[in-house]
Amino acid sequence: MSGSTFGHLFCVTNFGESHGPAIGCVIDGCPPGLALSEADIQPDLDRRRPGTSRHVTQRNEPDQVEILSGVYEGLTTGTPIALLIRNTDQRSKDYGNILDTFRPGHADYTYWRKYGLRDPRGGGRSSARMTAPMVAAGAVAKKWLHEVHGTTFTGWMSALGEIGIPCEDESQIPLNPFFAPNAGIVERLEAYMDALRKAGDSVGARIEVRARGVPVGLGEPLYDKLDADIAHAMMGINAVKGVEIGAGFASVAQRGSEHGDALTPGGFASNHAGGVLGGISTGQELVVSLAIKPTSSIRSPKPSINRAGEPTVVETFGRHDPCVGIRATPIAEAMLALVVMDHALRHRAQCGDVHLPIAPI
Amino acid sequence: MSGSTFGHLFCVTNFGESHGPAIGCVIDGCPPGLALSEADIQPDLDRRRPGTSRHVTQRNEPDQVEILSGVYEGLTTGTPIALLIRNTDQRSKDYGNILDTFRPGHADYTYWRKYGLRDPRGGGRSSARMTAPMVAAGAVAKKWLHEVHGTTFTGWMSALGEIGIPCEDESQIPLNPFFAPNAGIVERLEAYMDALRKAGDSVGARIEVRARGVPVGLGEPLYDKLDADIAHAMMGINAVKGVEIGAGFASVAQRGSEHGDALTPGGFASNHAGGVLGGISTGQELVVSLAIKPTSSIRSPKPSINRAGEPTVVETFGRHDPCVGIRATPIAEAMLALVVMDHALRHRAQCGDVHLPIAPI
Amino acid sequence: MSGSTFGHLFCVTNFGESHGPAIGCVIDGCPPGLALSEADIQPDLDRRRPGTSRHVTQRNEPDQVEILSGVYEGLTTGTPIALLIRNTDQRSKDYGNILDTFRPGHADYTYWRKYGLRDPRGGGRSSARMTAPMVAAGAVAKKWLHEVHGTTFTGWMSALGEIGIPCEDESQIPLNPFFAPNAGIVERLEAYMDALRKAGDSVGARIEVRARGVPVGLGEPLYDKLDADIAHAMMGINAVKGVEIGAGFASVAQRGSEHGDALTPGGFASNHAGGVLGGISTGQELVVSLAIKPTSSIRSPKPSINRAGEPTVVETFGRHDPCVGIRATPIAEAMLALVVMDHALRHRAQCGDVHLPIAPI
Amino acid sequence: MSGSTFGHLFCVTNFGESHGPAIGCVIDGCPPGLALSEADIQPDLDRRRPGTSRHVTQRNEPDQVEILSGVYEGLTTGTPIALLIRNTDQRSKDYGNILDTFRPGHADYTYWRKYGLRDPRGGGRSSARMTAPMVAAGAVAKKWLHEVHGTTFTGWMSALGEIGIPCEDESQIPLNPFFAPNAGIVERLEAYMDALRKAGDSVGARIEVRARGVPVGLGEPLYDKLDADIAHAMMGINAVKGVEIGAGFASVAQRGSEHGDALTPGGFASNHAGGVLGGISTGQELVVSLAIKPTSSIRSPKPSINRAGEPTVVETFGRHDPCVGIRATPIAEAMLALVVMDHALRHRAQCGDVHLPIAPI
Repeated sequence: MSGSTFGHLFCVTNFGESHGPAIGCVIDGCPPGLALSEADIQPDLDRRRPGTSRHVTQRNEPDQVEILSGVYEGLTTGTPIALLIRNTDQRSKDYGNILDTFRPGHADYTYWRKYGLRDPRGGGRSSARMTAPMVAAGAVAKKWLHEVHGTTFTGWMSALGEIGIPCEDESQIPLNPFFAPNAGIVERLEAYMDALRKAGDSVGARIEVRARGVPVGLGEPLYDKLDADIAHAMMGINAVKGVEIGAGFASVAQRGSEHGDALTPGGFASNHAGGVLGGISTGQELVVSLAIKPTSSIRSPKPSINRAGEPTVVETFGRHDPCVGIRATPIAEAMLALVVMDHALRHRAQCGDVHLPIAPI
Repeated sequence: MSGSTFGHLFCVTNFGESHGPAIGCVIDGCPPGLALSEADIQPDLDRRRPGTSRHVTQRNEPDQVEILSGVYEGLTTGTPIALLIRNTDQRSKDYGNILDTFRPGHADYTYWRKYGLRDPRGGGRSSARMTAPMVAAGAVAKKWLHEVHGTTFTGWMSALGEIGIPCEDESQIPLNPFFAPNAGIVERLEAYMDALRKAGDSVGARIEVRARGVPVGLGEPLYDKLDADIAHAMMGINAVKGVEIGAGFASVAQRGSEHGDALTPGGFASNHAGGVLGGISTGQELVVSLAIKPTSSIRSPKPSINRAGEPTVVETFGRHDPCVGIRATPIAEAMLALVVMDHALRHRAQCGDVHLPIAPI
Repeated sequence: MSGSTFGHLFCVTNFGESHGPAIGCVIDGCPPGLALSEADIQPDLDRRRPGTSRHVTQRNEPDQVEILSGVYEGLTTGTPIALLIRNTDQRSKDYGNILDTFRPGHADYTYWRKYGLRDPRGGGRSSARMTAPMVAAGAVAKKWLHEVHGTTFTGWMSALGEIGIPCEDESQIPLNPFFAPNAGIVERLEAYMDALRKAGDSVGARIEVRARGVPVGLGEPLYDKLDADIAHAMMGINAVKGVEIGAGFASVAQRGSEHGDALTPGGFASNHAGGVLGGISTGQELVVSLAIKPTSSIRSPKPSINRAGEPTVVETFGRHDPCVGIRATPIAEAMLALVVMDHALRHRAQCGDVHLPIAPI
Repeated sequence: MSGSTFGHLFCVTNFGESHGPAIGCVIDGCPPGLALSEADIQPDLDRRRPGTSRHVTQRNEPDQVEILSGVYEGLTTGTPIALLIRNTDQRSKDYGNILDTFRPGHADYTYWRKYGLRDPRGGGRSSARMTAPMVAAGAVAKKWLHEVHGTTFTGWMSALGEIGIPCEDESQIPLNPFFAPNAGIVERLEAYMDALRKAGDSVGARIEVRARGVPVGLGEPLYDKLDADIAHAMMGINAVKGVEIGAGFASVAQRGSEHGDALTPGGFASNHAGGVLGGISTGQELVVSLAIKPTSSIRSPKPSINRAGEPTVVETFGRHDPCVGIRATPIAEAMLALVVMDHALRHRAQCGDVHLPIAPI
């Protein structure tokens, strides 16, 4: 109820702070009988973890996950799966200077006003470090969905600042530090980031996520539509400021004669809907797009106030991502997987076995 | 759990179908002692109801609300408030031709695949008629928030199809059928809609919503951030395909030095954040923007398939909105009010009395 | 969250007050495709309704239920089922004298202290009238469980005050006003009640409920054990002060060698467990027993205080049940059905199709 | 949703198995600003832990708790508090013989039927070891309730098998291994247990719990009455078969003229209600009583079946409590504290500041 649990049937409760002893999550509701070990989870954590290129924070966290419960002889038992990741590279002294001041664009001010106190070390609970357990839980959901429904999740960066990144070849995504589906543009992105880092500034990004092989019929009218829950999941990722499904904001200027995807005996003729009609999956690809704001922690000094309300200047010296969007791709995939997983179970509860996607329809 | 309840503490459970005997909702969790009568709810229902201009569906529904419970001698008692709206202008025979076919862009196909059966009369549960109880519940939330915190909610149309509508004068909003904050543009919008209707087509729209006087400190890290819950609420409104908070998708191309709103002794110097930092309200204006797709029910024939998977052509003759966006403004306001209300109670549960917004900060 | 919704997947939201315009409920999560009409619900409402014998309240309520939504052409659609019961025989003036005083044993004092105000007409929301929608929702659950799993629910009175009622013949239950499974004892119960009514007093009762044909495997460790949720449901019925499962309080003095039910190739050899082990159904009969306190509304004057804290005397003149336990049997059956139904769906969500009870095991 | 989370606003998610690497819980929703360290939690864990006398299981677990998150500089921050207890004395080989057979009275059979597989080591998730995190979470709730409302929780054993234990002196409770409020009876209890152990058998017990200083007004009509939630919490404790509030089953034979507690200017004249009227706390002592069944793991051989359905004989050699009731007292206190805590926050959400108990009323 205090917002640290995601999902209704595949429930993930997240805990931890950037510089506390550990972070992690508890998954309650995972179906029994899924083969699961740390090796199923670690690869996605490794895709998200810091310190993997010069374009992301240099904090060095191995993010090694330990399964504490819910697995017996390599199979999930149906009981809670607790996942633990110890923090190892805390340098809390880096943050001494922000104890008393509020960094612009950060949650410092709002946490302090909400709770009357706050953990200033690395942003405490508001740190993007909290997305590691999301990624870990997402890996479990991905595995189940893949085994049962053949569902896959793929994300990429489609814009870095003002540079659009056309999706030319998805196989390139894992081969560059930007999750760019486009080998030709990587050099330009590298140069762009180098200049930005030199300038002590940061920039936004746009991320695409797709789910393929999603069963028809997932999503609950009225409020918990599949796209509504996707929007909730995506906007809940740190730094996200916008979410689109399918045609998104482009649908404002579309005509109905153009937007409505025709059905043919061979399947839908287009996918402006982005895989959701009336809040329920169509069996087509889920098409989701996110706007990620520029990191607020920048080296350039910025005017602010302190807790007494007096003017001051904030300079941030900790280790930060000049573009948080770079590491956002595996996070967005994971959150999308959690939404689909939860709705797969919700659907099964009410309607029995989930209908597999069929071709032509 | 089947998605018809909104909110965790101010819980609104919605029921009904477009052509059933009645629609309505039950509000559980409303604080006791609020003065409430039908007269507090009816005005917002009247703003949303069909048949008020030639630009919206000609279905004629008075949408008269009856309070069935939860109010004694004019005050809420703290127990569930049931609101009932009888359907009066059903013409189910209008829909006979879609019994066996799936209208492109509609939920016909997905409902049928999800449940194995569907109520085809006016779209059944997937009809935008279901937003009437949302508006009714929102009116209750608006009243409490206004009385306790002075919060107000204002929405308007900022684009109709490719026509942008600059916000020049909010006092104009109730004076034209488009909720346009701009008297000078109304004639052009009228002409645009007339041409569209003649062409048997439909178009999308963009809606803005603002909440002012929102207390500082509302919103729950981690997943149930205030903006995440706003995104959930907005994307759950029929036909919404995109949601932005604050700078939204424009933040992709922004630098951190520009995006982060500086704090000064006189308050925040800007509001790119849209009133939310780290998922928690800053006390500034909440800035929300929605993309609404063009109505799928258009007169022009469209290729589709029937339940046997055979090709067919769909023509829709029922009474429909050529731009559902026109009536979306009060709905978006209501859903935003429900989110803020729920978080006001959630905050009070955990942190005690909500902090009032203060100036300068 | 304010406690008017029961269940997690088969969610029943109850509304109304004793003397408001209507009472009812909304069921969200009912599986689609169940044949359902008012005729499936009315019989259980008739079993519970007041005015059927001289031993219960003489308030005359037909308790006619109307289905407002969720059913199309005689089948549930998977969307919310709203059930409405208009109140018809309100005599609020009967309660004028208790406006300012607190009836001993009643919720008058606690409602007033909790909410700062209260609806005094017939106890408002605290009235046993609120159990009518529970019974209506339970009838829907009973029907689905019977059709899908063959489950049946049977309740009876096992003690009226100090008179124990041996269960001799369940077929007698509907044939007397006490739900007594024992024809020979009815005359004695009639005389007992007549004397009690004459004395202006009331008395408690003990109710048994059984569910047969419950699938194996229902119930969730850790907190939401099947028996824990049964206890929650039963203790939530007005006037219930104790709940037992299986051997109940008798198990305190039992030895482990006696209590543990042996398994044999032909099934369990006994049922001290009452059909639940480790919080999960065994497939045996669910055995539940309830203690119901004497009605607090009695004619005999009783000392109390008024809202100013001054001593006063309370006499109750409204129409009341001298033994609320008499009408409790269908209510207890309904609540047990709601628990089993909810767990059937919860089980299906996590573990897939529910295992049918099998014999020998 | 899979039943491992307790509470709606003070949410405790429990994880772990008897012989896995660790057990623990995550508390979401604890108010910020509470002084908290391991030293506040360990004493209650020590009261519950095994190996403290010859009358309980000889498994030697220090049950050392580690706070992983949610506390900064000694104060709760309002974010999730993760508590970790490593398992240290696992001897899984003790349980080899039950891999293929179902112990009578145990959850072996039901887990296997529910999930299709089970962790047999020490009962896995169904072990009473899972109550350690409940006790840890309860200690946090107890501390907050005591600091804010002065609430205290006291439990004791009121019967060991057929031996009733009159409550003579609560100060004796911590001075004997039975939590008996009666010094004179301890020797008899010791002899009784020694004989039982020698016989290889086990026995039930009855436990009382009291909460004092509970604010008036806690509890939610309709379903989530305070007593309903207490019943849910208590029946969810391993081995509990019955729950009573106030007069409990004795109220069956009471008259209304006797049962209803008179109100006087000096307070309630009696407490048959057990501190709850209409599901809402009266401000009096909460009076709760539990029946605990005899441990199912006994040394004496017992007939059962194996997974093939063939007859076999089960002998249990692991380390077990001959009376699980002995260690149940701190668990019952903890669960009662969790219920009261959750309702304190629920009340604050809807009605604002909780009303303190007042005298005379």
